[in-house]
Amino acid sequence: MSVLAVTGGVGGAKLAVGLAHLLTPDHLVFLVNTGDDFRHLGLHVSPDLDTLTYSLAGYACPDKGWGRIDETWSFLKTLQDFGGPTWFQLGDKDLALHVYRTQILSNGGSLTEATKDISEALGVKHSVLPCSDDPIATIVDSDVGQLSFQHYFVKHQCRPYVKGIQYEGANRARLNENLDMATISLVVICPSNPYLSVDPILAIPNFRNFLRNPDVPVLAVSPIVQGRALRGPTTKIMTELGSTVDNNTIAHHYEDILTGLIIDEGDAKDCDNVRDLGIECIARNTVMRTIEDRVRLARETLDFGNALSN
Amino acid sequence: MSVLAVTGGVGGAKLAVGLAHLLTPDHLVFLVNTGDDFRHLGLHVSPDLDTLTYSLAGYACPDKGWGRIDETWSFLKTLQDFGGPTWFQLGDKDLALHVYRTQILSNGGSLTEATKDISEALGVKHSVLPCSDDPIATIVDSDVGQLSFQHYFVKHQCRPYVKGIQYEGANRARLNENLDMATISLVVICPSNPYLSVDPILAIPNFRNFLRNPDVPVLAVSPIVQGRALRGPTTKIMTELGSTVDNNTIAHHYEDILTGLIIDEGDAKDCDNVRDLGIECIARNTVMRTIEDRVRLARETLDFGNALSN
Repeated sequence: MSVLAVTGGVGGAKLAVGLAHLLTPDHLVFLVNTGDDFRHLGLHVSPDLDTLTYSLAGYACPDKGWGRIDETWSFLKTLQDFGGPTWFQLGDKDLALHVYRTQILSNGGSLTEATKDISEALGVKHSVLPCSDDPIATIVDSDVGQLSFQHYFVKHQCRPYVKGIQYEGANRARLNENLDMATISLVVICPSNPYLSVDPILAIPNFRNFLRNPDVPVLAVSPIVQGRALRGPTTKIMTELGSTVDNNTIAHHYEDILTGLIIDEGDAKDCDNVRDLGIECIARNTVMRTIEDRVRLARETLDFGNALSN
Repeated sequence: MSVLAVTGGVGGAKLAVGLAHLLTPDHLVFLVNTGDDFRHLGLHVSPDLDTLTYSLAGYACPDKGWGRIDETWSFLKTLQDFGGPTWFQLGDKDLALHVYRTQILSNGGSLTEATKDISEALGVKHSVLPCSDDPIATIVDSDVGQLSFQHYFVKHQCRPYVKGIQYEGANRARLNENLDMATISLVVICPSNPYLSVDPILAIPNFRNFLRNPDVPVLAVSPIVQGRALRGPTTKIMTELGSTVDNNTIAHHYEDILTGLIIDEGDAKDCDNVRDLGIECIARNTVMRTIEDRVRLARETLDFGNALSN
């Protein structure tokens, strides 16, 4: 039996790395958001798949939370000299990944196949699966109009006011067919942005149905710590969407699928409210600064899952 | 009135640089082979346009005859780690040019527009015109089958035996419409490979017709020096096509369009044979090792053109 870790990019990848330290590739599968995927400079870019793959391979740039370590920037500097678009920063090594993936897709390969090739080449042993091989596009309805996710997130640096979020294509998308749901005994929703990184995955109809299976506990690690998200636009988006930035909102958000929620120990007082929704709740240190933090929180998450399964 | 310099890559670009030192952008236009253009890794690569543009901009790599100076190779090394194709060497900076051009073409721009943008960004003042905005593909009929030019030239390193050469699309291609033929008072065919670099241009019907205009002298600088070409596969191809590797063959090759041929001073004895074909001939030092060599030969070529015009 396997654990299925559902994750987006930076925040989720931290817990994902912890889980990968504890579980062998036979017992852990990653299901990754593709709603941020976009074409840029003719290339298929998959930011969350890449952040996770680089993180698992030990190639993630620790300072930035995206891109590769030991990156070089000749391409981008030269593109700038030509007046080309440089708002999305592509390092020379990262570019090779995008070009390689785009070639596989152009030759009729699937995103799953491309991701498998790439992660194997980077030495990743665990299965990293795009949530779907069908296109899903996270679209932000904002005060400056509809923006594709990367335009909102990177080009506009999350400045526009968010009025709503759509996951184009998700309702027609099929869950990655390489994922054998029958083998999954626990689902862990990693602490990625619920609206931007997790919901596009949950919007896939047959995945959401599966998560309602009472035999498989679904846990989430809350991305909220003491009233705010540790990084990214989660806090801002929750506020703009009219939600209180707290664990209660997170619990409500995942209410119909969640068995248990892990919140930060500083928010332990929230556990009672979460339990009132029929969701088990434990409080732990959810701030993952070091690899030890990631492995510890992963272990606590798995222990919680075991307790709920019994 | 302007000089039109017809050129391919490396050999021709040397004389082109010399001409650009002597003539202002108002009086010199380059018409460049696109038969070597190909798509690689999803990118539109134009080797001869790039070699010329880099040469005129002072960015050409002097050792290799292709690519940029001060190049870095992170992309290619990483692509190799992925198992991607590395037979065509793309440096990080060079890649920016190809990505930028491909974007312009993808957005509906022409190769002429892309080339203008790129050459201006690199500080090139002279007009660099692709011979046509219609696709032309040089195909080598070889003992291992039909090969596109770059596959013959780079991937197979010119090893296959050449049985014939075709210029696919050339007979339907329109001469670059930004070239105002009425302003051209002299045509110089630079010392590029006649079969691989010049003939694709000459195969454009309305260009070949123009070259038969008796009012506009057409000069060529022979790429043959004492029985061999200085670089590239010209010698090998001429032999395999059953031709003697000498200036007489070059003169015959261009016989129906040529007013005058400049051959190397070491081959001065060939002048009489060339003149027997009704082509004027002078012998000069055609080996261009230094920038001074290039400017000197360019001046001698222009002087020859002036003499023939009077």
